[in-house]
Amino acid sequence: MKIPKAVQNVIESFEKLPGIGPKSAQRLTFYLLHVPQAQLDNFADAFASLKKGTKLCSICMSIDETDPCLICADSARDQSIICVVEQPLDVLALEKNGKYKGVYHVLHGRIDPLNNLGPDEIYVSQLLIRIKQGGITEVILATNPTMDGEATAMYISKQLKNISSLLRITRIGRGLPVGADLEYADEITLQRAMEGRSEV
Amino acid sequence: MKIPKAVQNVIESFEKLPGIGPKSAQRLTFYLLHVPQAQLDNFADAFASLKKGTKLCSICMSIDETDPCLICADSARDQSIICVVEQPLDVLALEKNGKYKGVYHVLHGRIDPLNNLGPDEIYVSQLLIRIKQGGITEVILATNPTMDGEATAMYISKQLKNISSLLRITRIGRGLPVGADLEYADEITLQRAMEGRSEV
Repeated sequence: MKIPKAVQNVIESFEKLPGIGPKSAQRLTFYLLHVPQAQLDNFADAFASLKKGTKLCSICMSIDETDPCLICADSARDQSIICVVEQPLDVLALEKNGKYKGVYHVLHGRIDPLNNLGPDEIYVSQLLIRIKQGGITEVILATNPTMDGEATAMYISKQLKNISSLLRITRIGRGLPVGADLEYADEITLQRAMEGRSEV
Repeated sequence: MKIPKAVQNVIESFEKLPGIGPKSAQRLTFYLLHVPQAQLDNFADAFASLKKGTKLCSICMSIDETDPCLICADSARDQSIICVVEQPLDVLALEKNGKYKGVYHVLHGRIDPLNNLGPDEIYVSQLLIRIKQGGITEVILATNPTMDGEATAMYISKQLKNISSLLRITRIGRGLPVGADLEYADEITLQRAMEGRSEV
């Protein structure tokens, strides 16, 4: 039995997505065959207009409906503190509790030499331009606490120190997450937790 | 930060798919933001034309580009043996090794009382009509060896016996899969393997 072309097209589309293998792609596609045509059309519209309905903020490189984005345009937020993150989803995660009142800078990736991603492939230069324009007092480096994320934070902090010695450069706290068990924590996390200890 | 409407639409589309939760839907959507518009358009076209480019075979209820499907229309196949399966994907799985030379009947589901799926919700009556038309010598019940699949096979075999006492009704073999370890097999599988033993 040959898979019909229309079905094969959808399977191939799904397979291009990260974390969806050939079997999952087949399963999802055959599920969609039982769905009303109207819902499939909605699906198609949503995909086609995904990028048309979104803009890259020219200040912080985040994704929003307007340029500048709502956070950069918000005068109630502290425009002198920039939190540097890897992905737009990281902004969402940090905004969820609503405690942070500064602004963001989205790198859209990290320095990852094994995958040929250098500082020029992510929005580092745009961050440096923002700093050079002045008015920034603190940069919080909130890249992921992975090998690549640490390297990216290290690289950016060096670049920032070259620009201004007055700028406060910080790294998000690393240690044990809430609810964790000391017994099962890995060595590096424990080391970071000791280094990052604070007065009680 | 509010998620842009265009992004939210795609997230919601993904969330409707089985096995994709809110976090995966977000991750997939933000991945698509980095993909060229042409690929998004391909994606949209594939979805919109999924059902338009496929037909339900009026004989076996399988999904193909033509009606009747290529298997039902193939004179080289033994039209007197029908293999009954739950889903179109099961046909693909059985066709992969190319050993089976009969035809199929796709139920598009199984009898599942807990989810309000009775015999009328799946294509059982179409199978019974096919049998009544005559010319069928054997029906192989290849529903899944799950509780629901076994109940479906049991129900269909009773219905078939009412129609014709000459019809050969078989159930696919159940036992240990190739590469399995007797030590780790569950009791019911072992019981089925004993029941289904064959002469060497």
